[in-house]
Amino acid sequence: MNTPIIIKKATSRDTRFKLKDGAGSDAVHTTPIYAYAVCSLQTDRKIEGVGLAFTLGTGNGIVCQAIDYLVKHIEGREINELMADFGTTYKIMADDPNFRWLGPHKGVVHLALAAIVNACYDLWAKSKGVPLWKLLIDLSPEALVNTLDFSYYEDVLTKEDAIALLKSQQNGRTAREKIITAGYPGYDTSIGWFNYSDEKVAQNILKAMDNGFTAMKLKVGSKNPERDIRRAEMVRKIAGDKATIMFDANQQWNLNEAISICKKLQDLNPFWVEEPTHPDDVQAHVTLANTVSVKLALGEHVPNKILFKNFIQSGCMSFNQVDAVRVGGVSEFILISLLSRKHNIPVVPHVGDMGQIHQHLVLFNHISIGHPALLLEHIPHLKDHFKFPVQIINGKYQTPLEPGMSSDLLKL
Amino acid sequence: MNTPIIIKKATSRDTRFKLKDGAGSDAVHTTPIYAYAVCSLQTDRKIEGVGLAFTLGTGNGIVCQAIDYLVKHIEGREINELMADFGTTYKIMADDPNFRWLGPHKGVVHLALAAIVNACYDLWAKSKGVPLWKLLIDLSPEALVNTLDFSYYEDVLTKEDAIALLKSQQNGRTAREKIITAGYPGYDTSIGWFNYSDEKVAQNILKAMDNGFTAMKLKVGSKNPERDIRRAEMVRKIAGDKATIMFDANQQWNLNEAISICKKLQDLNPFWVEEPTHPDDVQAHVTLANTVSVKLALGEHVPNKILFKNFIQSGCMSFNQVDAVRVGGVSEFILISLLSRKHNIPVVPHVGDMGQIHQHLVLFNHISIGHPALLLEHIPHLKDHFKFPVQIINGKYQTPLEPGMSSDLLKL
Repeated sequence: MNTPIIIKKATSRDTRFKLKDGAGSDAVHTTPIYAYAVCSLQTDRKIEGVGLAFTLGTGNGIVCQAIDYLVKHIEGREINELMADFGTTYKIMADDPNFRWLGPHKGVVHLALAAIVNACYDLWAKSKGVPLWKLLIDLSPEALVNTLDFSYYEDVLTKEDAIALLKSQQNGRTAREKIITAGYPGYDTSIGWFNYSDEKVAQNILKAMDNGFTAMKLKVGSKNPERDIRRAEMVRKIAGDKATIMFDANQQWNLNEAISICKKLQDLNPFWVEEPTHPDDVQAHVTLANTVSVKLALGEHVPNKILFKNFIQSGCMSFNQVDAVRVGGVSEFILISLLSRKHNIPVVPHVGDMGQIHQHLVLFNHISIGHPALLLEHIPHLKDHFKFPVQIINGKYQTPLEPGMSSDLLKL
Repeated sequence: MNTPIIIKKATSRDTRFKLKDGAGSDAVHTTPIYAYAVCSLQTDRKIEGVGLAFTLGTGNGIVCQAIDYLVKHIEGREINELMADFGTTYKIMADDPNFRWLGPHKGVVHLALAAIVNACYDLWAKSKGVPLWKLLIDLSPEALVNTLDFSYYEDVLTKEDAIALLKSQQNGRTAREKIITAGYPGYDTSIGWFNYSDEKVAQNILKAMDNGFTAMKLKVGSKNPERDIRRAEMVRKIAGDKATIMFDANQQWNLNEAISICKKLQDLNPFWVEEPTHPDDVQAHVTLANTVSVKLALGEHVPNKILFKNFIQSGCMSFNQVDAVRVGGVSEFILISLLSRKHNIPVVPHVGDMGQIHQHLVLFNHISIGHPALLLEHIPHLKDHFKFPVQIINGKYQTPLEPGMSSDLLKL
C-alpha cells in the first residue's frame, strides 16, 4: 500500500552557476553559465519532488516561465495515481494547445516539460522511499510502459513491442544486476575543455588516469583545424594506445569540414566523434557516417523522440547520447532507450544533469533493457551544489541509495 | 543615396485575437487564439519597422520575452548598413550563446528571431519607400544573398550557387513580372475549419466560388476517419471535379493511420494532403509518399532550414509550405526558397501572417527565383486588425503598393 501523496503546488526556480577558469567551455560557449530550470513539487507530506532541465545562460528564465504555465496539468494529482497512467498526462502536457505551436515537442516548451516530468518521477521514487533506479527495475513491464507516450512511435515500437522487449530481457538480469555493486564505468569530460591550455589538458589527462579513468574526452570544433588535430594527437600520446578517447565538435563543422577533419582524426582511433555538425541534420550525418570510418555519437541536442527515431532508423548513429534533461524527461528518455535497444544502438547519455539522474537511468538501461554497461559521462563542476552528489571511485559511479533521482539542489 | 536611419530602440508587443464561431479551429486547436509576437523598431525618423512571428495562445508572451533579450544585436544599427551584410548578424542572433541551448534554431528562440528579422526587412523597405516585393526583386543577386546565412548549407547550396541561380532566372523575368498586375492566385482555407458544421462548410464552398476562388482547403485529422472522408467527399461534390481541393490533417495521424486514410482520400483527387503526421518525421513522410499516390504539402511546423534541407533532399515533399513567421523570418524563408527551387519543389507558403507578408514573398519567388505562381493561402479572420489588409479580387491577391511588408497592425 502506498500512502497517498498529493501535489499541492508546483513552482519553478531559476538556478545558475558560473564556472571558473575555462571549465565547461566549448566551441559555442566561451564563458558558460550552467543553469537548471527547476520544477519543485510541494506535497501534503514532508517530501518534495525536484525535476531539472539543463540550459546554458540567460534563457533559463524563459524555461521557468513555461514550467509555471504547464504545471496546471499535475497540480492536485496524487502521485501514484498520476504515475499509473503517466503516458496520458505526458501527452496532454506535450500537446497543450497554448504551447504546441511553440514546438511542437522542442525548444523552451519541451525543456519545461522535461523539468516537470522529472519532478514527477523523483516524487514517485521518494514516495516509495527508493532510488529511481530501484523503482524502475522493480516495475512490471506493463507499469513501466504506462508511464510512456507511444504516439508517433506506432510504426517502430508499440506498447506491446515494448512489453515484449522488457520481458525478453528478464533472462540474464541477475548477472547484469552485478553492476549495482561493481559500479558503472565513467568517462572524464573535464580533461579537455575548449579553452584549457595544452599544458592544462596534459596535466588533466594524467590526473584522470590517476583517478582510475580509462576513458576521456577532448573538445574540438576549432575554427583552426590544426589546433584540433594537435590537441587530439597530444591526448592520444599522453593517454596511451589503450585509453578510450573521444572528440567532441559541438556542431561546429559543416558537412564538408566534418568529412575532412574526421578523416584526419580517425588515424588516432577515437572511440567516437561527437556532434560533428548540425544536430537536426540527419542526412548530413548519414553521408558523413558513410564516408569516414570513425563512429558518431549524437543526441545531446536532439530535441525529441521523433528526431531520435529518424536518427536511429538512418543507421548513422553509433552511440545514442539522449539526455533526460533535454528530451521530455525520464519518460521520453526510456522510450528512446527502448527503441535504441531494438536497433542495438548503445545509450551513453549526455549529462546535462552532471550524471545525477543518469546514474540511475543507465543502471535501468543495463539491467531492465539489456543495454551494455558502456560508459557514463562525468562532469564534476557542480558537485558542491547537489545534496547527494555523484560518488566516483576508481573511475566508477557508485550506485546511489538515497530515495529519488539525486536531483535535489542545496539551497544557497 | 539612402538617408541613414538608426534603430534607436527595439521592443516587443504581445497581441492576441480571439476568433469567433469555430473560425481557425483545427484538429489541435478547438478554440484558437491567434497571436503575434511583434517586434517594433523605433528609429530616429518617423518610420517604424514592424516584424511578426505567429503563435497560438498563451505561449506568445514567452516569445515576446525572448525578443526583448535578442534585440541587443540590432539596437543602435543603421538599417542600410545592417542589411548590407545581414547574413552575419542573422547568424550571430541565431547562435547567441545565452539562447542557443534552447534550440538551436527552433521553438521560442527561433520565433523571436523571426519577429526581429522581419522587422529589419520591413524597416529596410520602408526606408526606401517601397513595398518589400519591389525591394527584393530590385536587389542585385549579390546584395540579396548577403542578407542570408548559408551556414550548414554549404553541402547543398553555397552563396555562389545562389547567385548563379538568381542570375540564371533573369531570363524570362519580364514575362513573370506580369503577375504584378494580374494578381497572385489565392486559395480559401476558411471554407472548412474543423469545427464548422457540414452545412456551414457547404455554404462556404459556394461563397468561395462566388468570390472567384477555384481552390479551397478542408481541415481533416478527426479521431473519426469517417467524418473526414464524409466531409472530403462533400467538398469534392459541391465544388465540382474542376475545383482544386486540399485536405489538412494538422499532424494528427501516425504513419499507419496516414497511409490508411490517404489511400481513401486519394480517390477524391486532392491537390495535396497537408501535414499528415509529425512535422519532424522525415522518414515517416518518405514512407507515406512512397506508399500513397497523393502529393504531400509540408512545412508549416518545420522549424528551420536544416529540417527543410532534409525534407527537400528526401523527395517526400511535393509542396513546400515554409512560413516566414515560423522560420527565421524573410532571410531564412528566401534561403529555403532558393534550395526548394534548385530541387524544383514549388513553394506555397503557410500564412501565419494571414498572407500580409507572403503576398510580397511569393511575388519575389516567382519573379526573381522562377518558382511557379501557384497559389497563396488566404485566411480573412484578422483583416480588421491590419493597417493595410490584403486585397483579394476575384480570388486573386492584388499587389500591395504601400512601403514595407504590410505587417503594421492597427493599435487597439
